[in-house]
Amino acid sequence: MGLVLPHGGGELKPLLLEGEARQEKIGQARGYKTLEITSREARDCFMLGIGAFTPLTGFMGRADWHGVCSEMRLDSGLFWPMPITVSCGDADGIEPGDKVALVSPEYGGLVATMDVREKYQIDKQLECLHVFSTDEAVHPGVAKVMAQKKWNLAGPVSVVSEGGFPEEYGQLYARPAQTRALFQQMGWSRVAAFQTNNPMHRSHEYLVKIAVEVMDGVLVHQELGRLKAGDIPIQVRVRAINALLDNYFVRGTVVSKGYPMEMRHGGPREALLHAVFRQNFGCSHLIVGRDHAGVGDYYGPFDAQKIFQTLPEGSLELRPLTIDWTFYCDKCEGMASMKTCPHGKEHRLLLSGTMVCKTLSEGGEPPREFSRPEVLEVLRDYYQSLDGKVDI
Amino acid sequence: MGLVLPHGGGELKPLLLEGEARQEKIGQARGYKTLEITSREARDCFMLGIGAFTPLTGFMGRADWHGVCSEMRLDSGLFWPMPITVSCGDADGIEPGDKVALVSPEYGGLVATMDVREKYQIDKQLECLHVFSTDEAVHPGVAKVMAQKKWNLAGPVSVVSEGGFPEEYGQLYARPAQTRALFQQMGWSRVAAFQTNNPMHRSHEYLVKIAVEVMDGVLVHQELGRLKAGDIPIQVRVRAINALLDNYFVRGTVVSKGYPMEMRHGGPREALLHAVFRQNFGCSHLIVGRDHAGVGDYYGPFDAQKIFQTLPEGSLELRPLTIDWTFYCDKCEGMASMKTCPHGKEHRLLLSGTMVCKTLSEGGEPPREFSRPEVLEVLRDYYQSLDGKVDI
Repeated sequence: MGLVLPHGGGELKPLLLEGEARQEKIGQARGYKTLEITSREARDCFMLGIGAFTPLTGFMGRADWHGVCSEMRLDSGLFWPMPITVSCGDADGIEPGDKVALVSPEYGGLVATMDVREKYQIDKQLECLHVFSTDEAVHPGVAKVMAQKKWNLAGPVSVVSEGGFPEEYGQLYARPAQTRALFQQMGWSRVAAFQTNNPMHRSHEYLVKIAVEVMDGVLVHQELGRLKAGDIPIQVRVRAINALLDNYFVRGTVVSKGYPMEMRHGGPREALLHAVFRQNFGCSHLIVGRDHAGVGDYYGPFDAQKIFQTLPEGSLELRPLTIDWTFYCDKCEGMASMKTCPHGKEHRLLLSGTMVCKTLSEGGEPPREFSRPEVLEVLRDYYQSLDGKVDI
Repeated sequence: MGLVLPHGGGELKPLLLEGEARQEKIGQARGYKTLEITSREARDCFMLGIGAFTPLTGFMGRADWHGVCSEMRLDSGLFWPMPITVSCGDADGIEPGDKVALVSPEYGGLVATMDVREKYQIDKQLECLHVFSTDEAVHPGVAKVMAQKKWNLAGPVSVVSEGGFPEEYGQLYARPAQTRALFQQMGWSRVAAFQTNNPMHRSHEYLVKIAVEVMDGVLVHQELGRLKAGDIPIQVRVRAINALLDNYFVRGTVVSKGYPMEMRHGGPREALLHAVFRQNFGCSHLIVGRDHAGVGDYYGPFDAQKIFQTLPEGSLELRPLTIDWTFYCDKCEGMASMKTCPHGKEHRLLLSGTMVCKTLSEGGEPPREFSRPEVLEVLRDYYQSLDGKVDI
């Protein structure tokens, strides 16, 4: 058995130019109009560049945008759950037929070029209601759509940069072709992806271990890139995750890598986008736990699991590996989920990662049933370094 | 999504007659030649009767027997991993064209009738070497083949008895049509079967719980029928299993039922037979742990897992859910398998059910990491009742 095919059933379509072609494109781009793009847009360019958004060839036009918002279909009929778009204002002076240099100040300047084929206006409220199920401006995904400029631009893209990710993250950063080669080398065909942008505690360990038991292997797949204020720095998160993987997993059962896409907090729809690009990375399954890619109370805790059941047959090759709320139970004497533990609340340790960070930052000691000592040590060091007053 | 189809892709084929047709057949059988059959043969009749051996219509002829032994194929090409045969001697005086009453003294007399179409001799050594990978007479499966009489008889069978199983085991006993109806009623389509003929300890609980996490539900499926000397009585085993299911599983995630087939101890080949009939019972998966259906050291601990990978595509709809050796690990602080625990032997509690029975029968107390207190209580009561000297 081989790996799952890339989305759409064809080959991976990386849009990244390399070597001479890249140098040539960079030279040409000096003569192009320039468009400064947002962090989300730049990171979508990196995803397009490495083939993680296969089979897209660039940013979406109006027909694709509308089909994706309302029916989760590209104009071609292919399943796609969230718009991948770039916007410009009147002042940018860009028109169809232009070649444009897409520039990101955050990610080192020129990121990609686009042949503009279409310039169109969208109903942002329609997009938000379909994609985020809300148009409240405090929703971080909605806020970014609402902040988009007046026009969307569509057209094929050539990517000339990976935004410094390979240099910054080294082996942790991997393109879909690389994870696929790695899985093949390990003899894996059934591979589950575990999405994370946080340190992993025992409940995450439990999710991944269930997948290890029933799959050939697991890809622990971390979001890389710019953080929100208050987030644990990525290098600290990586150390905490490595402390878990090194001490509690068998070598050869888990691969730890990162990807450049910016979290949209789109809950169910974003879980589907996570599924699409994980299929491109070679994963046959995506672990979907409680409140996947959610934010606040916008989504029911299992909406992201349920949406997979509503997809027409053939939408995706990847299957969700859905797991209920997980915790330590002192009657089970181990980790369990709502599906496997029949005991009462009073036996369960239900904590959140956020609460643990709070406890640690206040010098407290979270219970060992919640998190492994090696992981807590990494986090404790970080919080101590933040302010000398933490006393443990 | 519906349930997995019966083996062969058609309808269930129960050969059991009921009501008037059964009475009529019993009347006719009074005029038939009589053949006394073994316990294994009688229990195969019950499996044929309830449709668990769908699509077989009776005992196998020479072409089926040979194809099954050498290539795991019926003459029709359909996958089938072990012979299902009945034998007679010269003294039985049975010839092709005869109608025969199959009688089991152990299971209440007349079990089934057969229209004899074929009478053939087999190479028992060939059967044993193919099916059991050994012809050593101390292997209990080999011993039974070697004890078969001179001729095999083949032909369609009508079953008139369930051998008293429904009366003896009540709700625990179920036909494939019944488990299928039950699964449908529960809204299950992905159902894993867990095979057992022993009490369940924590490692078995762990196997089943992994399946509960990733499937819609689990069928805990016990062998019912005549025991070997020294086995725990079935009613005790059932109480021990119920003690585990009632106290450590969520209602609606597990169904506990029994089936009448006699264990052949055929290791990998028997695991495949277990898979075939579990598919008939409506299961999409079979949990295959360490040394499934093995005996002594005849099979490698994971031979029964590996054999599934050797089957040509389309042999079976059911998939194996293979899980490594499981145990409690004090560094993991929970149950784990060789695939999920990286810690050394010194951290692992590796006991066998046999050792626990020995400890209990000698008045000792097995560690709670090995077995749940509610299960140990049932077993302790049993061993105490066996001999008044046990002091706990």
